[in-house]
Parts: sequence; C-alpha cells; structure tokens
Amino acid sequence: RAWLPAVADSDFPIQNLPFGVFRHPKTGEPRVCSRLYDTLIDLYELGAAGLFNPLSPLNLAVFLRPALNDFIALGKTTTLALRDQIARLFAQNSSEGEQLKNNHSLQKLAFHDAKTAEMLLPVEIGDYTDFYASRQHATNVGIMFRDPANALLPNWLHLPVGYHGRASSIVVSGTPLHRPKGQLKLDADAPPTFGASVRLDFELEMALLIGKNTNLGDTISTDEAEDYIFGLALFNDWSARDIQQWEYVPLGPFLGKNFGSTLAPWIVVLEALEGLRTPTPKQEPEPLPYLQFKNASNYDVQLEVAIQPADHAESYTVSRSNFKHMYWNMAQQIAHHSIGGCNMRIGDLLASGTISGDTPDSYGSMLELAWRGTRPVKLGDTGLERKFIQDHDTVILRGHGITKEGIRIGFGEAKGKVMPAK
Amino acid sequence: RAWLPAVADSDFPIQNLPFGVFRHPKTGEPRVCSRLYDTLIDLYELGAAGLFNPLSPLNLAVFLRPALNDFIALGKTTTLALRDQIARLFAQNSSEGEQLKNNHSLQKLAFHDAKTAEMLLPVEIGDYTDFYASRQHATNVGIMFRDPANALLPNWLHLPVGYHGRASSIVVSGTPLHRPKGQLKLDADAPPTFGASVRLDFELEMALLIGKNTNLGDTISTDEAEDYIFGLALFNDWSARDIQQWEYVPLGPFLGKNFGSTLAPWIVVLEALEGLRTPTPKQEPEPLPYLQFKNASNYDVQLEVAIQPADHAESYTVSRSNFKHMYWNMAQQIAHHSIGGCNMRIGDLLASGTISGDTPDSYGSMLELAWRGTRPVKLGDTGLERKFIQDHDTVILRGHGITKEGIRIGFGEAKGKVMPAK
Repeated sequence: RAWLPAVADSDFPIQNLPFGVFRHPKTGEPRVCSRLYDTLIDLYELGAAGLFNPLSPLNLAVFLRPALNDFIALGKTTTLALRDQIARLFAQNSSEGEQLKNNHSLQKLAFHDAKTAEMLLPVEIGDYTDFYASRQHATNVGIMFRDPANALLPNWLHLPVGYHGRASSIVVSGTPLHRPKGQLKLDADAPPTFGASVRLDFELEMALLIGKNTNLGDTISTDEAEDYIFGLALFNDWSARDIQQWEYVPLGPFLGKNFGSTLAPWIVVLEALEGLRTPTPKQEPEPLPYLQFKNASNYDVQLEVAIQPADHAESYTVSRSNFKHMYWNMAQQIAHHSIGGCNMRIGDLLASGTISGDTPDSYGSMLELAWRGTRPVKLGDTGLERKFIQDHDTVILRGHGITKEGIRIGFGEAKGKVMPAK
Repeated sequence: RAWLPAVADSDFPIQNLPFGVFRHPKTGEPRVCSRLYDTLIDLYELGAAGLFNPLSPLNLAVFLRPALNDFIALGKTTTLALRDQIARLFAQNSSEGEQLKNNHSLQKLAFHDAKTAEMLLPVEIGDYTDFYASRQHATNVGIMFRDPANALLPNWLHLPVGYHGRASSIVVSGTPLHRPKGQLKLDADAPPTFGASVRLDFELEMALLIGKNTNLGDTISTDEAEDYIFGLALFNDWSARDIQQWEYVPLGPFLGKNFGSTLAPWIVVLEALEGLRTPTPKQEPEPLPYLQFKNASNYDVQLEVAIQPADHAESYTVSRSNFKHMYWNMAQQIAHHSIGGCNMRIGDLLASGTISGDTPDSYGSMLELAWRGTRPVKLGDTGLERKFIQDHDTVILRGHGITKEGIRIGFGEAKGKVMPAK
C-alpha cells in the first residue's frame, strides 16, 4: 500500500509503476517519469534529492533524455531495482516512505498531475514490426476479403505472420491525425481515383518495446525472449482500409497504415504483469521446435475501444476484447523475428496485430465490428452509429488486468482524434 | 581538373565528390569524408586548418559524428557550397588549389587511401522503404510466381508499389552476412521444415537518402521531391526466396529480407548526377495528377552485379542493367510515399527495388537471371555456375554513368560475402 491517497479503479497502483517521458511545465525539457495513481513522479528530481542513493550509482542524465532508450539500456537489473526503490519510497510504514512523505518541498518539485501533464512519445523507436497474431482477426479478414471456406492462409498456423511498419509516424496518445488521402479503387471496373479515405479504421493492439540489443546474426529463443521485453503499451495501428485494399498486393500494407499510429504514453514493465499470466491457446498443428515454449506466455488484459464523437463529452465503448486471445504469444513473435538473424535494438516496437475475440462485440477493428460496413455499430444511446471512423471522432483504447489478489494493473489510454483530410 | 594525379576510369573525379564516414586509423573515431580518385579526404582536418573559412561559419563538430545525418541537416545550400569549396581546393590553377597542394603536412593529416580505409555505415537510417518500381522485374516475378498471362498485378501501373523494410539490419559494404535460417516450404504437400535458406539471392537496387524533414501530415509534390533527395548509393537488398515465398502472403516480405541489406559507403549527391538525366519511360495509363511530373527524372547509370566465388581473386559479372529502366522515378516514389501524410526524416532510405532491364542478361536478381533455377548462370570461364548464391560467394554491385562531356560519375561498390548459416 502506498501512502498517497488511493484512487478507486486506478490503472496505476504501487504494483504498477510504469515509465514514461513528460515535458516539464517550467523548463519545457523532457523528463523521465513514473506514475502512482494520478501523480506523475519526476524521477530526475527524486534522484537529485538523493533518494536513489541506496542503489548502485546511477547517472541521473538518463532521466533528462527525450526518450526512455538510455534508461532502458541500463538493463533490467538496474531498471527493476530502481522501480523497487520507487515502490519503497511510496510504501506506507517504511522508513523510506516516511522520508518522502514528510518532504513537502521535494514533493512540490517532483510531483505533477498525471491527468494534465504533457506526455511525450516515450521511446525513440528504431524499427516497428506489426504482427497478425490473433486467429479470430485473421479469420475475419480472410472471410471478408478472400475465401470464407479457407479464411486462414496456409502459413498462418505455422508461423506468426508479421511485416515491417513505419516508425517515423508513430505518435504519442493525444496527437491528432489527419484523415489520409490516396488512391482508392471504389469501383472494380473503373480506374482508381484520388481522394480522402472513406474507410478509416482503428486497430486494437498491444505493443512490446525491446529492452536489449542483439547483434546481426543472433537469434533469441522463446526461453530468452522475456529478457528482451522491457514493457508493454497500448497501440492503435490506424488503417485506411480502402487505400490498403488497393495497394497491398503483393508486398503488404504501405500508405494504408503509415499515415500514423498511436502509442500510449505509459510503458508497463513486463514484470508488473506477472500476476496476469495465462496459458497461450492450444496450437494445432504443433509449431516447429524454435516456436515451442514452456511457460504460460499470454496475459489476461481486458481491452476496450471507445469512440468519442465530436461535441460529446463521453466516449462510447464499441469493443471489449482481451490480450489473452493472442494465438501466437510475444515470446514466439520475438523468436520468429530473430530466427533469421535480424538484429533487435532497444526501443524497437513489436505490435501484436489487431486483437479480436470470438464474439462479434469483441472484434478489434471497425472493419470487423461493422462487418465491412454491413452492420453499423451503435454509439450508446446517442442515436449515432458508425461503419468506420468519421472526422472529429476520438478513438480511445484502454486496458487493464486484475490479479488473483484483486490488484488492478492497467495501461491508461491510447487516444487520437481524426481531423479532416488536409 | 584536379591537381591530384588522375586515375583512369575512376568513379570519383572532381565532378563527383561524394560523402561518407570512415574510421580514423589513429583515433578509431568516425570522421565525415569525401573522396577524389582514390584519395579519401578527412573533412574535419580541412575545416580545422581553416580551408572552409570562406564559407558561412560551419560547426566542425558535424564532421566528427558517426553518420552524415547532422551534416545533411545543414541543408543543401550549405552542403553543396561545401562541396563546391572542396572542388576549388583540389582544382588546378586556382589559388585555393595551390594552398592545399603546397601544404604537405595538412595532406598527411587529411588524406588517406580510400582503397584501404575502413568505411562505416554513412547514414543513421530511420526508416527504410523498398519500392518495386522496375516493370521488367515485376513482370518477371509475376510470370514465375503468379500468372504469366497477367504478370503485372492490377495496381502496378497505377502506383509505385512499395513496402516498409527493416532498418536495423542495413550494413555497410564489406560486412559479411550469414545465410539465414527459417521456415521453408520445399514440398507443396508437406508441412514446412526448418533450415538454412537454399535460395539466397541478391537484388540490384539504387537507394536514395532523404535530406530534409517533413512533419506528419505534410505531402511532397513531384516538383519538390528533388529538394528532399540528399544523394544516392548502391544497395543490395539480399533476399531468401524460399523463406519469402512461404511467409509473404498476405502482408509482404519479412524474414525473407530482414536478415541484412548492404549499402555502399559513398553517397553521391543528386546534383552530381545532373549530366546523367534521361527521360522516364512512357507511362500508360497516365498516372493520377499527384504522380505526374515535368522533368527528365530518370538517370542513365550503368549497373552491374558480379560474383566472386571463394578462393577466386576475380569477380565475374552476371548482370548488366541500368538505373534508367525504372518505370516509376524517384520523384514519383517520394510523392506517393508522402501523399497520405507519412513524415520523412533525414536519413530515411528509399530503395528502388530490383532494377531489371529488358534482356535476360540485364535482370537484377539470380531468381530472374537463372529463371528460378532453370537456367544456371556461368561465372566467366571458371566452369562454375550459379542458380542462387552459395556460401563464401561475395556479391559486388557497381554503377557509374558517363556524361555527354565524357565525365564518369560513379558509385564505387556495394559488396558483401555470404557466410554459412550459424
């Protein structure tokens, strides 16, 4: 228990303590931070006050960088020891806790309101990979666009299909995006036309951030994979379905995706999710040896997508899914990604792909929820409905899990508003 | 003309002056450099000696960085003025030329043997995009893997098909690569197996490096595109055809490509290629307005691929192609890439895709040259032949153009040796 007053249903109790980067309101400079309930904690200030002195010496400059990469590069031994120390500083009935609790001038320097702080993209992302690891999503897309009788392509059950995405256009939650323009093939018998996408969609995903470098030629086994995961965050891989559909054969999505992706500001370390572990769904046929694994490697994280239309104060949930539905787990994704020797770098982002559950209200994209526009989705009792995302809609992803002990570990929000095409 | 003794058939006369980064043999630190014939020129030393003083003040620290990005960020006005000044310093019968020519102690500090210098990856590459812009290549692949009667897919003549590649595994020429392992589907009726690729291939490509940032949501017109190109370099997009073929549907190449790509060390600025301009092939159907362009936007650059087998001192040419064959030119690629608002960053690499000519000896990959293994390619009169690339083969790309005035502007080499699978 923390000595800060508890906030009911918070994603960020003392058992979470995620990492992020915020813009200091006075200096305008970036600072690395953590979060407890709605209190944003400036880690540079705690360090400068000597509160990390019990740890091995730490170069506080890592907390002044514009992204977490240099902090992550210290390694899990150091970053997890620091997180433990933060927990001690906020623990009730501990000497360390008393020290910070009574130091009001330090609190004034180091604490900010997490609900109003300006958060920055937490990680400098070298490469971004998107997987396609939800069986239900791949099946739904296969039924709609290819062959209902053979919805899953032949390779899908043998390997975690993935592709490279665009890193430059990943933005932090809260950044508005313009509806993209591009080539559309609206009429099968006519040439393509140019215009704004009319099938703009979200994709409900979870992203993992790589925490350790490898050299070109190295592989990472499923057993080793968790050592390479620094943490996870919510991720919306916005997609323009009409642009994508015309362009994607034979080399995959390009302009249909690269106009923007939204990453949540808080990276929840993998270790905070330990109490949410759950078995991976049975894999049949048995995967090749390099994809086999020992542990329960999925995570029971409830996910939801909500849409907040223009001029509405509230958002309306359109999907409730769960991260545990992933057919291919993160360890398998990392093992597959590196099996040919592709090197990983701190800050690389590997996204899960759209996470769809088994029921129609648990699908992770509008494409599936509204079944290609044929079943519009109602936004609560507003009388509004959506086939795809409209201008001025804000799309909000949320996620959290509850441990057996009843502790809620959450991810906050990844949200983005769609502005009209430029 | 330069006062350094001319080297016959050099790619690097005084009209070229490309940029790169080498490791200083004494300090081990990176230094930005240029090249004239076989002399590597340490730009930091020239600057420290005051030889750039006639220019607007320049922060010489940009020449001590591990990559060209900060130098490129100075902008074309500055980088081209610097290149002009380098040309003056080496020009016969100029006062600046006399100054450097007579300063033997500075020459000792600033000049190195370009043939033995250790070159580094010249640019920190944010995102890597690969296009598929050679009509003959797309046609050949379509005939082999899809439908000979409809070799080009419906979108191909309407847009420059492209996809995102892996930036982390791009290495500088001379870096050996291990043959990748992965899933292979060797028997159509049996499950996939695991093993080393048996269809390892090169792809003869030209890469452009982005020289100017845009913001998310911005577009770049074909008229503006050349302002965004810092320069070009040879690029080998190594491909494991068997891994690629099994994995690539529906989201494109992944492990079939991301085990490594080889970039030449010398970036030739776009302006050095002015004398090689040639019209883009006729485009039918007429592209949409955002893809239309005014200038002759292709470049007449002769390209070749050579293979040097283990224990052979010589390399044997297996393909002679030309950069002028590109159906979609670089201005169109950039305009298309940004039309949805995808932001560009200095150092982004956009590769052309395999450049194949019309004749079977001008194809840009072994897949095409040996027509899927059915027509082995002879290596000179060694008695050796190749269907794909074997272990210990070194693959060398070369390229140069000759202007109307008879001046040879070249790109040096992009070479890489294939080591056995780990």
